[in-house]
Amino acid sequence: MPAVCVPFVGRTAGALRAEAARAARLKPDLVEWRVDFFEGIARTADVVALAQELRNAAGVPLLFTRRSSREGGQPIALGEPEVVALYEAVCAARAADIVDAEMAGDRAHVQAVREAARAAGIALLLSFHDFAGTPPAGELLARFRQAQDLGADIGKLAVMPQSKADVLALLQATLQASETLDIPVAGMAMGALGAASRLCGGEFGSALTFGMGEAASAPGQMPVDALRAGLAVLREASARR
Amino acid sequence: MPAVCVPFVGRTAGALRAEAARAARLKPDLVEWRVDFFEGIARTADVVALAQELRNAAGVPLLFTRRSSREGGQPIALGEPEVVALYEAVCAARAADIVDAEMAGDRAHVQAVREAARAAGIALLLSFHDFAGTPPAGELLARFRQAQDLGADIGKLAVMPQSKADVLALLQATLQASETLDIPVAGMAMGALGAASRLCGGEFGSALTFGMGEAASAPGQMPVDALRAGLAVLREASARR
Repeated sequence: MPAVCVPFVGRTAGALRAEAARAARLKPDLVEWRVDFFEGIARTADVVALAQELRNAAGVPLLFTRRSSREGGQPIALGEPEVVALYEAVCAARAADIVDAEMAGDRAHVQAVREAARAAGIALLLSFHDFAGTPPAGELLARFRQAQDLGADIGKLAVMPQSKADVLALLQATLQASETLDIPVAGMAMGALGAASRLCGGEFGSALTFGMGEAASAPGQMPVDALRAGLAVLREASARR
Repeated sequence: MPAVCVPFVGRTAGALRAEAARAARLKPDLVEWRVDFFEGIARTADVVALAQELRNAAGVPLLFTRRSSREGGQPIALGEPEVVALYEAVCAARAADIVDAEMAGDRAHVQAVREAARAAGIALLLSFHDFAGTPPAGELLARFRQAQDLGADIGKLAVMPQSKADVLALLQATLQASETLDIPVAGMAMGALGAASRLCGGEFGSALTFGMGEAASAPGQMPVDALRAGLAVLREASARR
């Protein structure tokens, strides 16, 4: 069964605290703070303190993520070196359990985040997002491999399918990556077309699926309760002989 | 959304009546009478009368199926010509809405069932089952095409996956068949490994999925309530933007 992750997308500390309180009731396996939504992203000390507070309030491990606007995130006032410094501060304070960096980012930046995470004993998730389409399965598999080669502890791909065949390509690449790589991988096809991948991705090797608490952080996320109900159906069926 | 079909596998008329009564509460889209389980299969008049009774009791269309032991059914006392005669009697009495014949059967027998069904205005489902493994996707697609070429109104394939990749092969062939053929198709991967195909097959072009009422007629069928709960999750997610 894949781990269920609830993203936080609040713009204010108050909204984020409400999301964390709700997550504490929803009991996901982990939560993700999409810090690019946060209006205070430029105040490093606030971000570090809030990350710790949100993790404590949710009561589960925290994935810390700044998604770049190039890969579907919110525009922010920080430049890339400042983003790296923010990650370094979060890692140094051990304010997160996993950090997400984009494998397509500047090589030196990825390496800096990897080193900060490693020094703090924090897991590194390297991700790739395509909001315009779905590369062929072979290219997707290469992306998963790239995550491993860059030193990721987890590799994650999210694509926008233009057809049902694209959803199958994503599932196929995720399955092959899970069978051939040494790290856990997560694959998801976004949007309405890709809904099956969020529910059944775990059947094809995906270690992680995102379900929404207050609001979705990417198209196609189901409410976490519905997602879990669907996963329970699959789990029971898979246990049956 | 795929149509949900509940199979009847009772050995006695009493057990079958109980299954039909339960199906009336479960409200599937259709029911299937797996007549090879029925101890009275050799008594044609009984079969015809019971088919009508079961359909009336269930309150939904009835799929009439003798599954051969070669394709995973129960051993029966009838020879193939007698099975064809049974189908002809069921069709002549319009005691079913759809009849299932195996496309791998004797060509003349398939043709006789097709003509009996057509004369009665009953739909013909041509099926193929592999309980030992999963042929490659190209071969599966050819099987779907064969169903159409043989005059089926619906083509159905059920395979036994030996790996998750086999499940994806089945889904891929089902998707391609649904996009390239003129008839609706149904594809399912059986057993615990194939559970995702019963839940998500509709996302990849399958028009039909089987969920158990009293008992499963093939490995991997989920209870119909659980199946429907999972389908509802997918339907809501697919409707979301």
